[in-house]
Amino acid sequence: MKALVLDGALSVRDIEKPRRASGEVLIAVKKAGICRTDHEIVNGYIPNFSGVLGHEFLGVVAEADDASLIGRRVTAEINAPCGVCEMCRRDLERHCPHRTVLGINGRNGAFAEFVSVPRDTVVSIPDDIPDALAIFMEPLAAAYEILEQVHITADHSVLLLGDGKLAMLIALVLKQTGCRLQVVGKHARKLTLIKEMGIPQTLMLAAFVNGQYDVVVEASGNPEAFALAVANTRPRGTFVLKSTYVQHLTYNPSPIVVNEITVVGSRCGRFPNAIRFLQEYKPPLQKMITAEFPLAQAVEAFDRAKQSDALKVLLTV
Amino acid sequence: MKALVLDGALSVRDIEKPRRASGEVLIAVKKAGICRTDHEIVNGYIPNFSGVLGHEFLGVVAEADDASLIGRRVTAEINAPCGVCEMCRRDLERHCPHRTVLGINGRNGAFAEFVSVPRDTVVSIPDDIPDALAIFMEPLAAAYEILEQVHITADHSVLLLGDGKLAMLIALVLKQTGCRLQVVGKHARKLTLIKEMGIPQTLMLAAFVNGQYDVVVEASGNPEAFALAVANTRPRGTFVLKSTYVQHLTYNPSPIVVNEITVVGSRCGRFPNAIRFLQEYKPPLQKMITAEFPLAQAVEAFDRAKQSDALKVLLTV
Repeated sequence: MKALVLDGALSVRDIEKPRRASGEVLIAVKKAGICRTDHEIVNGYIPNFSGVLGHEFLGVVAEADDASLIGRRVTAEINAPCGVCEMCRRDLERHCPHRTVLGINGRNGAFAEFVSVPRDTVVSIPDDIPDALAIFMEPLAAAYEILEQVHITADHSVLLLGDGKLAMLIALVLKQTGCRLQVVGKHARKLTLIKEMGIPQTLMLAAFVNGQYDVVVEASGNPEAFALAVANTRPRGTFVLKSTYVQHLTYNPSPIVVNEITVVGSRCGRFPNAIRFLQEYKPPLQKMITAEFPLAQAVEAFDRAKQSDALKVLLTV
Repeated sequence: MKALVLDGALSVRDIEKPRRASGEVLIAVKKAGICRTDHEIVNGYIPNFSGVLGHEFLGVVAEADDASLIGRRVTAEINAPCGVCEMCRRDLERHCPHRTVLGINGRNGAFAEFVSVPRDTVVSIPDDIPDALAIFMEPLAAAYEILEQVHITADHSVLLLGDGKLAMLIALVLKQTGCRLQVVGKHARKLTLIKEMGIPQTLMLAAFVNGQYDVVVEASGNPEAFALAVANTRPRGTFVLKSTYVQHLTYNPSPIVVNEITVVGSRCGRFPNAIRFLQEYKPPLQKMITAEFPLAQAVEAFDRAKQSDALKVLLTV
């Protein structure tokens, strides 16, 4: 089968079709999305990763132990946990120390004609969610993760740093809480799009004046935003860190201590909230799709996705 | 009056006795304690601070608007808030942006014969707490601050990094929660003292094996402990940062995101819990007093307090 393989460099190759193990589901991939994490892996974020990338996808079940699943439109949660460790027993499978992670760590991903995943990670996609929007399930769940971790209400002032794909989804999710949301970014066109999607308060970083927010969410991916986030969190406020940085920070954490700030690291979320959000609010995520490439042109798709104006770039299989 | 003045360097000098403003209380200082923060200020932690150092003290009221206070044994909360801002209205006076801080920022401290403080910061010391133990009120309140911010119970495994003065007080306070507490330090004699004060699990850093703790408290003051603290916090666990570092860290916060760790900056606490703790548990804090110097020898006292075996060094006025 055709797949986008990272092996030092990226290339589309013919590789062996995955053999479905018992307990797994083999999915014929239809669409997949390129994420910032994919670029980071190419740049060495996960040392020694080699294999098929891709963790945002939609497909159709081709083989399963349970024959009734065959033909179902599905995606999959990206963390494949062991199911028996302390984290799994605490309902924190996403933190299972024995987990593999789809297209990220120890498990081939979905930029391929087929992908095989554990049965328990498979999530059915309702008919009223179109293929192209189902791609957003994983990052949308990651946006929702913030609300699982931090109680944000209409009483709160929230500053969101970033105007990229994840920041846009976070803005849409946070807006539902009724909070006073200020989005700050560096890209006028992306900020305009955020405004078009119903978030009135957007601002270019150059025009931003420091403030004291109850909650600051850092989703820009820019290491310089770390200190900016701390400086804009009020004493006893909460700083949600969504970005992972390739580079080290040089930073003195004293303001975190002096102002008794709570820093909350936030990563993957659960899919059910994201599914309901898509069904109930019908956010105009189509606007976030920059381009669509066939899998055979996946390397070109990566190049397109890297450009600073790009938002979601899709692969069609 | 005699006072220890920082003005580029430290020296004991004769300076003018403070004039009590209306609303303030003039206190004749009897004993004071040297804190790590005092050393940090001498080393430039607060740029441009000059004046009288000292924020741990016990004294007797000499002058007050309310004559009934005269003669009372007292200390004072170190933060002098404005009383009318948003933080003050939220009962977070310790974070008032307009505050002055005793012997730390904008207000002369207690290494002097007299100190004048706002009436609302004065705290009465019950008769059953001896002078030398009253000195511990401020750092003990800072230890208690952790329990105001983080819910720690007998269900939790807690790692405490540090074996200095603040770490010892934190150990004593945390132990009351019934948590499984492991203390890790670099000084065999200090760890032995911690054990003598009733904390069974102590370990030299060299013998420590990384683990996964529900809560990690970093109170060592050593910037290298920051990464160690993160590495030992379980996914979704809490890392309480008590230390302020003079140096910058070079650090990649990705593990905080990936493991969804909550970092809680923790600083000053309220005095009432500390007072009750001293009355009810009668912790053997006398063991922590390394030496006592007259105010005239305060510079020598600072030198003694700097030595690695030193714990609390007192000044007697």
